[in-house]
Amino acid sequence: MTDETKKSVLYGYFRSSATWRVRLALAYKNVDYDYRPINLLKQEQRSEEFEKVNPSKKIPAYILPDGKVLTQSMAIVDYLEDTYPEKNPLLPKNPYERALVREIVNEIACDIHPIQNPALMAEIFPDNVDKRTEWARSHIATGFKALESKLAAAGRDSKEAKYCVGNNVTMADLVLVPQYYNGKRFSVDMSEYPIIDSIFKHLMTLPEFKATAPENQPDAPQ
Amino acid sequence: MTDETKKSVLYGYFRSSATWRVRLALAYKNVDYDYRPINLLKQEQRSEEFEKVNPSKKIPAYILPDGKVLTQSMAIVDYLEDTYPEKNPLLPKNPYERALVREIVNEIACDIHPIQNPALMAEIFPDNVDKRTEWARSHIATGFKALESKLAAAGRDSKEAKYCVGNNVTMADLVLVPQYYNGKRFSVDMSEYPIIDSIFKHLMTLPEFKATAPENQPDAPQ
Repeated sequence: MTDETKKSVLYGYFRSSATWRVRLALAYKNVDYDYRPINLLKQEQRSEEFEKVNPSKKIPAYILPDGKVLTQSMAIVDYLEDTYPEKNPLLPKNPYERALVREIVNEIACDIHPIQNPALMAEIFPDNVDKRTEWARSHIATGFKALESKLAAAGRDSKEAKYCVGNNVTMADLVLVPQYYNGKRFSVDMSEYPIIDSIFKHLMTLPEFKATAPENQPDAPQ
Repeated sequence: MTDETKKSVLYGYFRSSATWRVRLALAYKNVDYDYRPINLLKQEQRSEEFEKVNPSKKIPAYILPDGKVLTQSMAIVDYLEDTYPEKNPLLPKNPYERALVREIVNEIACDIHPIQNPALMAEIFPDNVDKRTEWARSHIATGFKALESKLAAAGRDSKEAKYCVGNNVTMADLVLVPQYYNGKRFSVDMSEYPIIDSIFKHLMTLPEFKATAPENQPDAPQ
């Protein structure tokens, strides 16, 4: 018997878009890890046990082999980039292109995603699920409209766009695809955003995106 | 007469916390720039003219001397860090400490700040300003409680803490201070978060934080 090398641990949920970003970075950096599902529908992220892992009671949380805890999906993605910079770089070398990547990341991670967070929508509309759907659809559509303009201004073509920035997968793509999934879930008409649609369709042909998709996770319903 | 070197331009608003983050990074990187105030109370960010600058109709926007436009405050801050890495580094060298900085940045920029955004609160409570205040106070308090726990877990001391991470100003501090200001504005009891309070009080003794504070901007009311 050989000693098992200690692995890192990812706490997440199959349908959490923030968790998907981290799964993608781990796939591109080829990091092996153990997955511990936290069922958001059962409010497991609010358990006393999980609060010890992350006082913010949010997933994802990423535990390094030495026990250190990292939270916030994009902080974890940046950590993986800093730690494995040569393996499938997720940021361009050029500072302006790097800024474009981070701009797209934050358009979604700071402006779109938090507003359509299920817990927030339940607080705004405690008794009306239809209103939550309408709210999410409207806010995702507003955000995608601006994002589509920015991608066009950066020279992306609606028929040929394969990546948000440059000719490789970057952090922007890791954030776009899960947000697109949320858009579909809330019946946003994606044909209105042909560049985003073209990028999404290309990215979903890639093995890393397929393998990490929500429906292919061990905690997804069969 | 000498030719004037072309400067970069910052579109912002004195009280916008996202703009303050960028003012701080520009101060620490010693970058000279022109400031163009966009009055959010007059909805100037929604004008046709400004939409051409930023289709997301949000500030800050940062125009490089060659005319390229960058938006999203933390993308701009990262751009300045990438462009002037040696001048007052705003990220530690160690990947784990860098991740801690980005974790604190995103706790605020993705989880606290968007939820207490005035435009969002006006949408949730169109006719009730008191409810907006109560909403902002409650969400900032929840976020600061978790952040205080994280700072304690990272070894910060409530009586001596001067910076969020390490012994220098980092991006985390650039984001903490404007959020603290928002907390005070919404009457959050800051004595409940002694580590955050200690860091804030130290940072506000620094010339870069004083000079960039909202009340010292040209568009602040006299």
